Amino acid sequence: MNFPSKLVEEAVNEMAKLPGIGKKTALRLVLFLLKQDEQSVVSLGDALVKLRSNTRYCKKCHNISDAELCSVCDNKMRDHSIICVVENISDVMAIENTSSYNGAYHVLGGVISPIEGIGPADLNIASLLGRVKEEDISEVIFALNSSMEADTTTFYISKKLKEIGAKVSTIARGVPIGGELEYTDEVTLGRSIMERVSYKH
Amino acid sequence: MNFPSKLVEEAVNEMAKLPGIGKKTALRLVLFLLKQDEQSVVSLGDALVKLRSNTRYCKKCHNISDAELCSVCDNKMRDHSIICVVENISDVMAIENTSSYNGAYHVLGGVISPIEGIGPADLNIASLLGRVKEEDISEVIFALNSSMEADTTTFYISKKLKEIGAKVSTIARGVPIGGELEYTDEVTLGRSIMERVSYKH
Ligand SMILES: [Zn+2]
Ligand SMILES: [Zn+2]
Repeated sequence: MNFPSKLVEEAVNEMAKLPGIGKKTALRLVLFLLKQDEQSVVSLGDALVKLRSNTRYCKKCHNISDAELCSVCDNKMRDHSIICVVENISDVMAIENTSSYNGAYHVLGGVISPIEGIGPADLNIASLLGRVKEEDISEVIFALNSSMEADTTTFYISKKLKEIGAKVSTIARGVPIGGELEYTDEVTLGRSIMERVSYKH
Repeated sequence: MNFPSKLVEEAVNEMAKLPGIGKKTALRLVLFLLKQDEQSVVSLGDALVKLRSNTRYCKKCHNISDAELCSVCDNKMRDHSIICVVENISDVMAIENTSSYNGAYHVLGGVISPIEGIGPADLNIASLLGRVKEEDISEVIFALNSSMEADTTTFYISKKLKEIGAKVSTIARGVPIGGELEYTDEVTLGRSIMERVSYKH
């Protein structure tokens, strides 16, 4: 790609570092920004820099936070005896948006992946075990994504949790609500039959 | 969407103002940026702000430029007697990337669109007519996009150009190279038959 200006080239190269944004999309975004008034572009740049520089993480559950404790850990109306273990902050947001969970969280920061060189010590596992030991925790729910690595991670942590006497559960897997059987992948469908629940009417 | 932090919310809202980027994509990008080292995010923010604040436009053809004249207008090896009229800077870049054009450009900055309130005075038309009057221009090639507004714009400007005795042409339209006839839209296909060229062998 030939660039008419070094400034355009630099902006395109920076934007193209974002996931899912190729050079063509980056150029489209850059040409859009050139047409905006200067203050809007400064607002965008500032928001990104402030985000990275000023964001804090909850010292208890590692969720994103504007204070020492996140809005979940700091909420007295929630049930802090249940911990939902997730991979990332986006999972906390997804579950919060369902409005169906009223317990606490623990953000691991990823899953154990020998290929990517991520071991248990790279994740927030020690602090989870610490919470379960020190606080009065009745249940730890694993809500990790569906992957080999996530299954390994659940297995590894739940083993340690059971050693210290914690009750461990995982979220239900099955055919999505509104999903059609014939379009559901066979692993999910098989699992939804094996883990069938009794019909309450 | 519930946000765990004001900083995340602001960054997502700013990113979601970009074209083609919804809130979900914006959140994905923001969570990606949170994982990057601080200097990378500052580089991105800086590149965007500098882009908007320091970018200049060629005083002759309105192409983007780091100097008073753009790299095309300033290039003595190019044929400055031919002007290719385009809508936007991205069109200059697209044509430059073909390496098949050696003339000059004129960037209109859009097309005449009564619905969007864009009249001839909002575009770089007067400066184009000025160039044709003052310089020794042998041909003006219109390379606008395919739209009603673009056709109106070409008609409006070419009328004025012909009044001052300029030779006007438009780029060829037809079935794309490598394009299959059955997948070509009927307007393009019809036009490619009507505007057929004699076969040279
Ligand atoms: Zn917290
Ligand atoms: Zn120029």
